[in-house]
Amino acid sequence: MRLAVLGAGAVGSAVADLAGEYGHTVTALADSASAVVDSEGIDVDAALDRKAEDGVVGDGDPETALDGAYDTLVEATPTTLGDAQPGFEHLQTALGGDRHVVLANKGPVAERYADLRALERDSDGRVLFEATVGGAMPVLSTVADFGSGRITAARGVLNGTANFILSRMAAEGLGYEHVLAEAQDLGVAEADPSFDVDGTDAALKCVILANVLSDSDREYTLADAAVDGIRSLPGSALKMANEDGRTIRLIGEVSAGEVRVGPRLIPAYGALAVTGTRNIVQLETEHAGRLNVSGRGAGGPATATAVLADVDRLSE
Amino acid sequence: MRLAVLGAGAVGSAVADLAGEYGHTVTALADSASAVVDSEGIDVDAALDRKAEDGVVGDGDPETALDGAYDTLVEATPTTLGDAQPGFEHLQTALGGDRHVVLANKGPVAERYADLRALERDSDGRVLFEATVGGAMPVLSTVADFGSGRITAARGVLNGTANFILSRMAAEGLGYEHVLAEAQDLGVAEADPSFDVDGTDAALKCVILANVLSDSDREYTLADAAVDGIRSLPGSALKMANEDGRTIRLIGEVSAGEVRVGPRLIPAYGALAVTGTRNIVQLETEHAGRLNVSGRGAGGPATATAVLADVDRLSE
Repeated sequence: MRLAVLGAGAVGSAVADLAGEYGHTVTALADSASAVVDSEGIDVDAALDRKAEDGVVGDGDPETALDGAYDTLVEATPTTLGDAQPGFEHLQTALGGDRHVVLANKGPVAERYADLRALERDSDGRVLFEATVGGAMPVLSTVADFGSGRITAARGVLNGTANFILSRMAAEGLGYEHVLAEAQDLGVAEADPSFDVDGTDAALKCVILANVLSDSDREYTLADAAVDGIRSLPGSALKMANEDGRTIRLIGEVSAGEVRVGPRLIPAYGALAVTGTRNIVQLETEHAGRLNVSGRGAGGPATATAVLADVDRLSE
Repeated sequence: MRLAVLGAGAVGSAVADLAGEYGHTVTALADSASAVVDSEGIDVDAALDRKAEDGVVGDGDPETALDGAYDTLVEATPTTLGDAQPGFEHLQTALGGDRHVVLANKGPVAERYADLRALERDSDGRVLFEATVGGAMPVLSTVADFGSGRITAARGVLNGTANFILSRMAAEGLGYEHVLAEAQDLGVAEADPSFDVDGTDAALKCVILANVLSDSDREYTLADAAVDGIRSLPGSALKMANEDGRTIRLIGEVSAGEVRVGPRLIPAYGALAVTGTRNIVQLETEHAGRLNVSGRGAGGPATATAVLADVDRLSE
């Protein structure tokens, strides 16, 4: 397949880098300020080297990235809330031209799911988005295998930054600010960590799961989620939990039409108590009990594998 | 789809029972002594009631079960070793008639993988077998998503009976014979538990994984696996492990062309230390680190969901 990759951050760069190994050709790569487009296939290494050196992938106008030849748009620009722009517009352009879309950007599926499905119905292109929920973990494909109506609830740890902070606080008895600074030094937390520590990122993933599980019976957006973060969680709460054989994790839940994210007490050695940046999702199934999937929920190459698995599905 | 279900044990019965809910029609159901066949759809409830009361599903000759109309054979007769009969013959008949095959029976994929793939190449039918490795857990579909060449190793707990016995021995400080008797009372272990406690069942699943991961570069059979069981494991070994923060599980491994099954020391609270009859599989991936999938590895309805997910894949 010919891929147009929009977004050249960790995920977009990794998709472009691995595409050749998966048998695909990158015909466009763009960041917010520049683009390289070639219907015969761009020089990915050169574009990524240039990005590393100059901060831009090339000399082209990013607005022209979807003017060339491609079969599938990989939308990996940063997630935005509300109207989910400019990601949504990119998706609209691709579907309008009967091209497929694979999303790493959570905005369009979390904030405008019904709009997206309506555009998809009018297009010969399809939209897949495994990478938006739990990075490398096969969450949405497992839901699809079971049939969304046969999953009665989902819960899990869906943000690696918050999980790193909580598991370090619990293991070392340190306070939030101290561990956050450490996580920022390690590159696990952003300079502005709000998106992760306030629960927004985990909530977006839960909203996407809720949309998929409801099978278009009802549309969910971030506004439907009850979200608490971990910013004000005192170290003493983790100590108290520990004395009771428990710990605290930022848990997202989709159940009975409700989407909730917040710090919860869980068994210290149970399946949900993953450590470091690992993620886990538990699916409650109608006929097969509880299923756990855990793995890397973020990171360029890990998330890129989910994007490329979607691309392969579209190639079948 | 019209399904011919061969085998009316826990899995075959559950497939027949759930097929209608999944939008399929059962046109044949057979056990080793009898069959019900109707191209318009059999009365599943009546056949299963009769099975419960009289031990047979109907009055037909089981040899005629594949003479009627069906799109997909669900092969759920007991796993046999060596020539994998009569399962293999059923599969051959179905593929010969250009019908699809979904296997719950491990024999044909563990013992005659190359023969099976050769028959499949000459047929318009396809063979899927998610249910043979880890019941309800999406193991083979995850391998397919990643691409078999991008999984570098697999390991896990693949037999619920052995795991139940080991986790009870560890938790209660009881000996093997005592816990085995308990497991037999609970229906978790068979009267003759050899297949489970000697590691054969776990080894077959690892052999199937090895065949899938090698992508037909090399054929594996049970003879290629180095297998140790748990029969002679003393309770004292579990106590010693426990004092070191470890426990013992029957672990199957596929790595660097080797298939091994045996009791192994593992961290007491690590991901592999699932308890009771639960199973877990860890996949080491090339670009996305380690992925864990855990859930119900056996049981009629759980395994039937994997069979029916395969049927859905064939319907696409």
